[in-house]
Amino acid sequence: MANSSITSVGIVTPEVFHFKDPLILRSGKIIPYYDLITESYGELNKKKDNAILICHALSGDHHAAGFHSESEKKPGWWDSAIGPGKAIDTNLFYVVSVNNLGGCGGSTGPTSVNSVTGKPFGPDFPVITVADWVESQKRLMEVLNIEKWAAVIGGSLGGMQAQHWAIEYPEKLRGAICIASAAKLSAQNIAFNEVARHSITKDPNFHDGRYLEHNSNPKQGLMLARMIGHITYLSDSAMRLKFGKEFTGDQLKPEKNVGRNLKSGELSYELNVDFEVESYLHYQGERFSNNFDANTYLLMTKALDYFDPSTDFNNDLSEAFAGATCKFLLISFSTDWRFPPERSRELVEILLSASCDVSYIEIEADEGHDAFLMPIPKYMEALRAFLKNIYNELEDHAS
Amino acid sequence: MANSSITSVGIVTPEVFHFKDPLILRSGKIIPYYDLITESYGELNKKKDNAILICHALSGDHHAAGFHSESEKKPGWWDSAIGPGKAIDTNLFYVVSVNNLGGCGGSTGPTSVNSVTGKPFGPDFPVITVADWVESQKRLMEVLNIEKWAAVIGGSLGGMQAQHWAIEYPEKLRGAICIASAAKLSAQNIAFNEVARHSITKDPNFHDGRYLEHNSNPKQGLMLARMIGHITYLSDSAMRLKFGKEFTGDQLKPEKNVGRNLKSGELSYELNVDFEVESYLHYQGERFSNNFDANTYLLMTKALDYFDPSTDFNNDLSEAFAGATCKFLLISFSTDWRFPPERSRELVEILLSASCDVSYIEIEADEGHDAFLMPIPKYMEALRAFLKNIYNELEDHAS
Repeated sequence: MANSSITSVGIVTPEVFHFKDPLILRSGKIIPYYDLITESYGELNKKKDNAILICHALSGDHHAAGFHSESEKKPGWWDSAIGPGKAIDTNLFYVVSVNNLGGCGGSTGPTSVNSVTGKPFGPDFPVITVADWVESQKRLMEVLNIEKWAAVIGGSLGGMQAQHWAIEYPEKLRGAICIASAAKLSAQNIAFNEVARHSITKDPNFHDGRYLEHNSNPKQGLMLARMIGHITYLSDSAMRLKFGKEFTGDQLKPEKNVGRNLKSGELSYELNVDFEVESYLHYQGERFSNNFDANTYLLMTKALDYFDPSTDFNNDLSEAFAGATCKFLLISFSTDWRFPPERSRELVEILLSASCDVSYIEIEADEGHDAFLMPIPKYMEALRAFLKNIYNELEDHAS
Repeated sequence: MANSSITSVGIVTPEVFHFKDPLILRSGKIIPYYDLITESYGELNKKKDNAILICHALSGDHHAAGFHSESEKKPGWWDSAIGPGKAIDTNLFYVVSVNNLGGCGGSTGPTSVNSVTGKPFGPDFPVITVADWVESQKRLMEVLNIEKWAAVIGGSLGGMQAQHWAIEYPEKLRGAICIASAAKLSAQNIAFNEVARHSITKDPNFHDGRYLEHNSNPKQGLMLARMIGHITYLSDSAMRLKFGKEFTGDQLKPEKNVGRNLKSGELSYELNVDFEVESYLHYQGERFSNNFDANTYLLMTKALDYFDPSTDFNNDLSEAFAGATCKFLLISFSTDWRFPPERSRELVEILLSASCDVSYIEIEADEGHDAFLMPIPKYMEALRAFLKNIYNELEDHAS
């Protein structure tokens, strides 16, 4: 962590909160009690009005910034944006990051032990929706004695949580930042999610979700799900830059030929891995399948599919946002085809029609959906400027 | 078949050709003898110069047009384009369609019995390249006593065969029509193919490719491969039209809400199939996995990945096409993101730089890559006009 020490939040220690009141889910099912694991960065001021909630996406967790130890090699997943002097400036804000219910990072989820059976919940853990997460985050907010979030921020699935906060608890947040998100999934997105679920549940090691009881892991299925996901998080152009022969209209020559074939152009003429992109995907899938819980993956994709704020409002999204009072910042990335700019622009139109205060910026970026994790200067500047305006509105600048 | 009888080629009977001379493959391996199954439509004229070769794509076969029996419900895969009076007019041309080597439609492939072992070839069937297919098609041409194809036509992987014909046997064809094709695959395309292969080969019923000997079928893997493929053959917009709530910028209202949720809006809040697109994908995958051979799927995707005409020409695609003398027609579809218009435009640039005679049209179509199978009027007109010009060049118009 030496190199990033200047702007890093440094060593962070997660904190677990126990909730003893039952949580009634959107499905009607009840979680009688549960834990939420969190991290926080920066200091809560006296007025307790400088808190920001970070909502994570499909495979994220509470570890958004800093390091868990001196020996940890990689910082939290959004360390590029969160820290002293960074876009989400911990010199100004108290930043709270939480692992969602159903996750596998330490909050209660399918890998937790069900005290009734003494075994992991596994497939008995109920389907969770974005609304349920927001409800659990609201309770966390109460425990933290925070009256109103300065902002709720999230990318992708995280942006959906920010949307739901704005709809459900309009008086509880000043700003909602939805990055690379959508008002609801496209059919194509649902289709990709279903293929991922199919690959997991049809893995013979899935055991109807009770793989932990069988000392097993549907590793191949999870690996495949991640490989598919990974392709869709990268743009075609990013993959061409990274792995491909790049044609340029002017030159008609390969711009770079490096790395397309593993063995410097020698093809195996077998059903082997010949291209670097293949081994890269294998590596990504392998790593993920060793570190993530398959049941959690199923739950997270289902939460994505189900998200549709209009269902409570006569299928009218504009009506859904009619009560929202916070300021919105929407950000999309030019080459993101999983949550393309069109989806963000639709949300802008909906918010405008609901008379919301909305800013929108489309960032030019090669990295596809993954761009939301990159410290792209214009993107960081947009976050910083929006949050600075909110900070200036706070009554108590001194902590 | 009653409705399409006027422009249908009617009942067709496949024909099998036996080849006894060994075929030396690009890999160095040898196929000692083999069968090719074909269909033909229309009549070969006296000069034998009105023959067209149809090359199929990944999951295609020789059955391109007409019906195998009065009771067959669906005609061949390209019946919309091939027939009397149709774009590929069997009143003018003699159309030959062949199932490629390694296929599972009746030509020698992994499901064929290896006479040495008495068992199916399975995984022992060698990896086949586009160049190998063209070589086998050249031998078929000789058997048919055809001196020069009026045209070689193919979509996707079929378009790659047309390209290779133009490079390898320039004097043997007047026209090459490459539809929704590319000079080589993008890294993204190779990545999707690798995920498909991974899902097949990791299916426990794959048995290292010897599933037939085990009376088995890697059905789940093949189903998954097809589901992924199917998503990528459809455009996002096509899926939205077919399954999605459709936003329109003006109205901000769902244009149609039908069919998104299976049970008229009732969500299961279980890990079930809730959305119509999910059950549609299951159906497509299920059907395909009952009718296609997994080893063939592996071979076909590998042929796609390997295609790169520049490898024999100092990695210079322009040099590869320098010897081509036929006319080219390239066609792409606006919403095709698996073989997008950019890839066809690159090929146009390459062909122009090689001083080839090339026409190019980009067709506006919602259907994505699948558009190449649709009878879109402008598309059909482009095919018809190009072929009519070739027909007018033929010396002997009367058959």
